[in-house]
Amino acid sequence: MSTNIKNIAVFTSGGDAPGMNAAIRAVVRTGLYYKLNVFGIGRGYDGMVHGDIFSMDAKSVANIIQRGGTILKTARSDEFRTEEGRRRAFENLQKHGIDGLVAIGGDGTFTGAAKFIEEYNIPVIGLPGTIDNDLAGTDFTIGYDTAINTVIEAVDKIRDTAESHDRVFVVEVMGRDSGLIALRSGISVGAECVLIPEIKVDYEAMMDRLDRTRKNKASRVIIVAEGDEAGGAFAVAERIKERFPHYDLRVSILGHIQRGGSPSCMDRVLASRLGVAAVEALMEGRRGEMAGLVHGQIAFTPFNKAIKHIGAINDNLLRIVDILSS
Amino acid sequence: MSTNIKNIAVFTSGGDAPGMNAAIRAVVRTGLYYKLNVFGIGRGYDGMVHGDIFSMDAKSVANIIQRGGTILKTARSDEFRTEEGRRRAFENLQKHGIDGLVAIGGDGTFTGAAKFIEEYNIPVIGLPGTIDNDLAGTDFTIGYDTAINTVIEAVDKIRDTAESHDRVFVVEVMGRDSGLIALRSGISVGAECVLIPEIKVDYEAMMDRLDRTRKNKASRVIIVAEGDEAGGAFAVAERIKERFPHYDLRVSILGHIQRGGSPSCMDRVLASRLGVAAVEALMEGRRGEMAGLVHGQIAFTPFNKAIKHIGAINDNLLRIVDILSS
Amino acid sequence: MSTNIKNIAVFTSGGDAPGMNAAIRAVVRTGLYYKLNVFGIGRGYDGMVHGDIFSMDAKSVANIIQRGGTILKTARSDEFRTEEGRRRAFENLQKHGIDGLVAIGGDGTFTGAAKFIEEYNIPVIGLPGTIDNDLAGTDFTIGYDTAINTVIEAVDKIRDTAESHDRVFVVEVMGRDSGLIALRSGISVGAECVLIPEIKVDYEAMMDRLDRTRKNKASRVIIVAEGDEAGGAFAVAERIKERFPHYDLRVSILGHIQRGGSPSCMDRVLASRLGVAAVEALMEGRRGEMAGLVHGQIAFTPFNKAIKHIGAINDNLLRIVDILSS
Amino acid sequence: MSTNIKNIAVFTSGGDAPGMNAAIRAVVRTGLYYKLNVFGIGRGYDGMVHGDIFSMDAKSVANIIQRGGTILKTARSDEFRTEEGRRRAFENLQKHGIDGLVAIGGDGTFTGAAKFIEEYNIPVIGLPGTIDNDLAGTDFTIGYDTAINTVIEAVDKIRDTAESHDRVFVVEVMGRDSGLIALRSGISVGAECVLIPEIKVDYEAMMDRLDRTRKNKASRVIIVAEGDEAGGAFAVAERIKERFPHYDLRVSILGHIQRGGSPSCMDRVLASRLGVAAVEALMEGRRGEMAGLVHGQIAFTPFNKAIKHIGAINDNLLRIVDILSS
Repeated sequence: MSTNIKNIAVFTSGGDAPGMNAAIRAVVRTGLYYKLNVFGIGRGYDGMVHGDIFSMDAKSVANIIQRGGTILKTARSDEFRTEEGRRRAFENLQKHGIDGLVAIGGDGTFTGAAKFIEEYNIPVIGLPGTIDNDLAGTDFTIGYDTAINTVIEAVDKIRDTAESHDRVFVVEVMGRDSGLIALRSGISVGAECVLIPEIKVDYEAMMDRLDRTRKNKASRVIIVAEGDEAGGAFAVAERIKERFPHYDLRVSILGHIQRGGSPSCMDRVLASRLGVAAVEALMEGRRGEMAGLVHGQIAFTPFNKAIKHIGAINDNLLRIVDILSS
Repeated sequence: MSTNIKNIAVFTSGGDAPGMNAAIRAVVRTGLYYKLNVFGIGRGYDGMVHGDIFSMDAKSVANIIQRGGTILKTARSDEFRTEEGRRRAFENLQKHGIDGLVAIGGDGTFTGAAKFIEEYNIPVIGLPGTIDNDLAGTDFTIGYDTAINTVIEAVDKIRDTAESHDRVFVVEVMGRDSGLIALRSGISVGAECVLIPEIKVDYEAMMDRLDRTRKNKASRVIIVAEGDEAGGAFAVAERIKERFPHYDLRVSILGHIQRGGSPSCMDRVLASRLGVAAVEALMEGRRGEMAGLVHGQIAFTPFNKAIKHIGAINDNLLRIVDILSS
Repeated sequence: MSTNIKNIAVFTSGGDAPGMNAAIRAVVRTGLYYKLNVFGIGRGYDGMVHGDIFSMDAKSVANIIQRGGTILKTARSDEFRTEEGRRRAFENLQKHGIDGLVAIGGDGTFTGAAKFIEEYNIPVIGLPGTIDNDLAGTDFTIGYDTAINTVIEAVDKIRDTAESHDRVFVVEVMGRDSGLIALRSGISVGAECVLIPEIKVDYEAMMDRLDRTRKNKASRVIIVAEGDEAGGAFAVAERIKERFPHYDLRVSILGHIQRGGSPSCMDRVLASRLGVAAVEALMEGRRGEMAGLVHGQIAFTPFNKAIKHIGAINDNLLRIVDILSS
Repeated sequence: MSTNIKNIAVFTSGGDAPGMNAAIRAVVRTGLYYKLNVFGIGRGYDGMVHGDIFSMDAKSVANIIQRGGTILKTARSDEFRTEEGRRRAFENLQKHGIDGLVAIGGDGTFTGAAKFIEEYNIPVIGLPGTIDNDLAGTDFTIGYDTAINTVIEAVDKIRDTAESHDRVFVVEVMGRDSGLIALRSGISVGAECVLIPEIKVDYEAMMDRLDRTRKNKASRVIIVAEGDEAGGAFAVAERIKERFPHYDLRVSILGHIQRGGSPSCMDRVLASRLGVAAVEALMEGRRGEMAGLVHGQIAFTPFNKAIKHIGAINDNLLRIVDILSS
């Protein structure tokens, strides 16, 4: 592989996601495989601005592939949003001779990277690391599969107690702008309804279904994405309570457990493949693109397109919820 | 074993707990072993009042030892609190010739059973089935160990994301009147502080510790029992926010996931042992007592003593939290 | 949907796989949604031959989506391989007026179904239910993702003890003819080598790598597919022992745990989608085809093509193992 | 606490066990709490002989409470069995001024420690860290509860596939000299038989039970401790096969997965309590004793008594297996 890249650095930014460590490991080990010097940057752009940059070797990433979170940590950086902040960040990279970056994160991460490339012409390849799966250019983001598996393990537990009491549960899952976690987890737990930001809630249809399924099902579960227009699980429960005051109704907000945990096989393989691809892309002279997996193949998407999530929910999945819960 | 008992029934009452199914299985199989007829009663006292009583055999309890919840279901029963309700309940038991009962539940269950024995002189043996561990006469209640394991799995996930962001998390666990879940899970996750109903919160000490541990620890976790005098996790977070406005502080309410899930080894063995003991106790003529495990041995405690939980938190455990989190 | 189908039956055949229950549930509920009568057949073709056929409704599939195994059970059937057996099977179906079948299983299942269609002209749609992922016409088979997740959870545990002792572990995973489980799980656990039936083992390269990685890694893990030409994990360990007699070397055969367990999100969604598709395909007049998911879209493949697994291991995955373990 | 101890060291020895890290953490943090200098010794006695001794602080044990294995590693040491080896070990301790040791391990560990005390008069307190639970002086050893939970999770998976195929499974679990893992896991998974080294196998009774339970149970599971006189699971399966050649019979050896994994709540609390107790015992002038938990209270047992495991299997548990599996 012909390349002039000699020193690369990797960092994580935005909300953490399971599989980020597997991606970091893949970037570091691939860099070493190609005889590059590899650096880590602590706490994302903030660490770049403040010079939190250090050399990494095989031992730095030993035994982390199975760990949740990110050993490089992640943080917000107001300073990197300023020209002065980016200037300092670039100077810090120069001190270590870094001539290529791998940025693991979501749309905020890539927006920052695009600006940085524009101003300083430094090659950056992005990896989609976010549980929300809200990026174009990849079938799945790193962390998404694990997050849904965490959701279904939790709701399976809730189902145990719901069945024992003939209860209706409204369960709120992550997804401020996207119903993708809600939709797949809803199918996976046999939810009666799934409420997502992308679709206007049809309360009448929901109430009808709750009423209709009552005789066949001891427990009913409604999955609500936190960004749903109804205003979250408590608001939805309120509406149901008005209509069916006799229901034994409970609310559960799954919250931050959805971000953690050991990554699933799918996330580990995805992170490993994309980590290799990112380093090789830098060596091939690519920049300003996110590496993703489209139909099982590595694909590259310019940052400005990746962050414009098409937002199109797979209609087929909605139909599956409808058919299987009726 | 000399006995006149011929027909026994088992039911679950109060909040469901992991291991209730293992206890039901043990009662049914032990009854069959001793050639008794065994009945199940659906939905606790409510099913007794409404005649939801059915015969059970080995197949009824096949493959349930590993399942959360209770296959017999559980429910509140206002009717059983009335004389008329209890009269109907007793008549329903008489129809099936039931001359012994095993009641799996907590203090409400045993209070009802004591009343029932008083009025109708029917033998009842209780089994401690509640995640709260708030009964005297047993070292552990069925469900307690599983609930804490569920808590620590969840908090381990939260720790992943807390570490990645250098965050402070306030996590609320179950325990309206008891800090036992909070205390053991707090030790297990390496919590910086554990706030429980039994102990007045020393906010100054907590703030000092948070401040002091800041340099050594990337993340800090505070475990709050829901019944804590401070008013739960959000109230505690509010106080911390006032004092340390710059902390990246999050709240997580674990909620109903704590009730479900496949029971742990400890709960399965406990439930199995107590289920055998309950049937043998009925056959030996015991009544009005809860079977428990004290120092590894089966022990029986009168209902009125079992429900008066001594409430004494193990001081040694509090000391462990203090030493290990400082 | 125009159709003449009125009565369908579903069965599972071959080795069980996690997600089969989710597929059964989807078939039953979709049938009911379209006002069909739905039957279950116990123990695969054997139950068909012996008339183990029963009506199913929504309650038959309540609360099974999260369960491993198959509630319809599965078995070998020598009788169905005979003309006489198939005749009896067909007569049994006729007794219930069954005019459409959904067969969940692997290549043996589909071979039988193809023969059955040929002789009796009964519509059958197949669903890929096998942990081996060894069918053409679908990106993933139902059960494959769960099986790999089970493998990596087990190997993560083994890694704990391997790290503590500086050991080399040879771990054998399922895959008599296919290295797909080995390959993805090998990447996921950071294996030093992955030995699969499709590729001739290069022992020299393996020994070199073991020797080379010794200084960087406290523990090393080699994943061997059971069908590997070397003859499984013990044979591989023997060869390593000859070369490096001082290694602290252990063997672990993961065995049957790989078949069980609650299905992953991916398997539940896959099974749910394919279950809906199978019923709709029967209604549309399709027959003799397997429903699969290709690039995220439902696709149908004739049985004779589905069972001719192309066997082409994704070279890219092998390359990933090489790069990341070096 | 009056004491002359100033510098303590902690090490792990023998087979690793889940919860060893929690114990290490507790020792280190308790030492720091009492203003002692705390050292770690790598790879047990071998590291002591070779001077693998290093200072530890709060950061050394951050975020390890939930990890399986031991960060201090463990190894065999033939050298420490020699006078010369022990002399070198003692000199290495002297170099760091170490005047107290905490040894985490099993009977081999304590035998070595007793010899060391005898020769060099150095205070050593032991902690029971072994999955086998084969030490006197503590109700449970650190790692035992986790190991059994790992076993039951694995057997629950096996049960899924056994039920689907109406199979008989012979599952071998750890326990060369002790049936304690087998017995408790056998009760927990509803095993039909449990074969343990302490009890002579009654093959006739086992065959009778297998035959008798056939009509009530789709699947049967037999748990065999590896040290069973029958010679392990394969030998047992052989005998069953002779008698019931038509059984669909499978063997599973659980193997090394039983050592790893994140420790359970019970093991974390136990390890934390004992870790605190060990340091405080050294400070109080104790030596040559193992800290254990007896009936919920800290208790100390001289090494020579702790390693003489009474071996008495709890008869009540055997009776439970008999009653519940009949």
